Amino acid sequence: MKLLAKSFLILLLLGTIAIAADPLASWNDTGPKKAIIAFVEQVTKEDSPNFVPVLERIAVFDNDGTLWAEQPMYFQGLFAFDRVKALAPQHPEWKTKEPFASLLRGDLKAAFAGGERPMMEVVMATHAGMSTDEFEQIVKGWIAVARHPTTKKLYTEMVYQPMLELLAYLRANGFKTFIVSGGGVEFMRPWTEKVYGIPPEQVVGSSIKTKFELRERKPVLLRLAQLNFIDDKVGKPIGINEHIGRRPIAAFGNSDGDLQMLQWTTAGTGVRFALIVHHTDAEREWAYDRKSSVGRLDKALDEAKVKGWTIVDMKNDWKTVFPFEKN
Amino acid sequence: MKLLAKSFLILLLLGTIAIAADPLASWNDTGPKKAIIAFVEQVTKEDSPNFVPVLERIAVFDNDGTLWAEQPMYFQGLFAFDRVKALAPQHPEWKTKEPFASLLRGDLKAAFAGGERPMMEVVMATHAGMSTDEFEQIVKGWIAVARHPTTKKLYTEMVYQPMLELLAYLRANGFKTFIVSGGGVEFMRPWTEKVYGIPPEQVVGSSIKTKFELRERKPVLLRLAQLNFIDDKVGKPIGINEHIGRRPIAAFGNSDGDLQMLQWTTAGTGVRFALIVHHTDAEREWAYDRKSSVGRLDKALDEAKVKGWTIVDMKNDWKTVFPFEKN
Repeated sequence: MKLLAKSFLILLLLGTIAIAADPLASWNDTGPKKAIIAFVEQVTKEDSPNFVPVLERIAVFDNDGTLWAEQPMYFQGLFAFDRVKALAPQHPEWKTKEPFASLLRGDLKAAFAGGERPMMEVVMATHAGMSTDEFEQIVKGWIAVARHPTTKKLYTEMVYQPMLELLAYLRANGFKTFIVSGGGVEFMRPWTEKVYGIPPEQVVGSSIKTKFELRERKPVLLRLAQLNFIDDKVGKPIGINEHIGRRPIAAFGNSDGDLQMLQWTTAGTGVRFALIVHHTDAEREWAYDRKSSVGRLDKALDEAKVKGWTIVDMKNDWKTVFPFEKN
Repeated sequence: MKLLAKSFLILLLLGTIAIAADPLASWNDTGPKKAIIAFVEQVTKEDSPNFVPVLERIAVFDNDGTLWAEQPMYFQGLFAFDRVKALAPQHPEWKTKEPFASLLRGDLKAAFAGGERPMMEVVMATHAGMSTDEFEQIVKGWIAVARHPTTKKLYTEMVYQPMLELLAYLRANGFKTFIVSGGGVEFMRPWTEKVYGIPPEQVVGSSIKTKFELRERKPVLLRLAQLNFIDDKVGKPIGINEHIGRRPIAAFGNSDGDLQMLQWTTAGTGVRFALIVHHTDAEREWAYDRKSSVGRLDKALDEAKVKGWTIVDMKNDWKTVFPFEKN
């Protein structure tokens, strides 16, 4: 009987903890949090008319500007510049060859005056020409030590605490969470499992072509300086269809690059959820939208208002932005 | 106390069932079954030097000739012919246009005398020109009623009972099971979950390009008559890398089209498992290998012997081949 009493006490305590713990503690009790909870309850309660079986609970998340920050520029761009600096000693010709010469002088504006072409040259010079295993090691090495230019934090600390909670909350409710990002798929996979709890096979992204080769009888996949797929804008529904093969019931983004993914997700039958993170907090993060060159949010903001998608006003809806604020 | 006695009895009974049920009951107690069990025990026992964490337990399966039959020709080819017949009334020009004219007369040999080009024409005429949703409905409709030309069984009955047990056994041991097939990814996804327990997002295959479009404001993905990816031979490790993003620890195939997948899988560090299904049973199934035009097994058979990969001799190692034999 003593044991039984003890068990009862433990059960009572567990009950209290369960009630006390808010899975979305970093969200203020404003509209977006309420909309998220209402959606999840609708699709998970077995007696709900909008119940969705576990296998169909697919949620897709953009990465840059949705799960982690993207200012002063996409972090993968900062990775590429660090790689240019690291590789410069092996490339004496870069001292006089654009866009590398300007880049090495720290003049980004001059380096990318030519638009997409010089940018692609930098991507290929830093992302191709090695095996997939070698590239994975390069990314792992960089992400472990590289620091953000203004906050001086590790990039993996520049993730949004409310979104980490949202990922965990959805998974606890039977959702399978995927990243669908314009970023390079092999740039993300080495760290998304640890940081977001999203395994490599649930990451969809842009890619370059690879080639299978036997190197001294050992098979390798060589990364080629040739585009394979751009997972942005109309590419997002295409990428979702190719990789996931069924339509998500919830999608989370922050920019016009996510518009087609949100359209595709919400056009399915039954209840669907679409959310846009609006960067409105110049103090804790950055404030930008319609005129930003990074993460421009213009058309998608208009469509979100017309269609009643959930818009997160970062300043007012998030109690905490970054995990390090809590310390 | 009465309740306790009852519970005890139930526990005892459950224990008996657990001991009695062989998860690989359709496998004879020969080498392959023993090798599979030894491998699974090695990677799942926590105190084993070869222990592999659950997240890394990735197993990849070819489909045609490995999970389901592929004679007298790949089932997707039979699907394409049925589609040609169904679409013929809308294409009066096919009566005189090759390869369709020969196909409609039932003369496959003449139709495909030209090799790959006429075959690709048939694929594009039957697989492209509709939305992804429409194609899914076409496949679902066909797979529900179409019958195999000689056995008259549904194609989804022409699956290998021992492989169904193997899939379930691996999943019960924490493995994530994937299909990596030369077949069309959108031809497989509508039914793999029901037949194999493999959800769409765990199916990797060949594909044609798609295009995102708004049709009367509704987003659709249109299937284009343009190749996107061939998931065969060197394409298999490339497809695995693109979709799964980590190297499998076990791979199962049956033909030279699987060779690079087996090489890629076994070249990883730690213990790895590779298995080849050798079609040796002319009575219960079909017997073919080095000279077959469908599912040719030649180079991979030599390499399997050299490298000590597990080879299933279908005739001797499988107690049952098809599920319908058990009835």
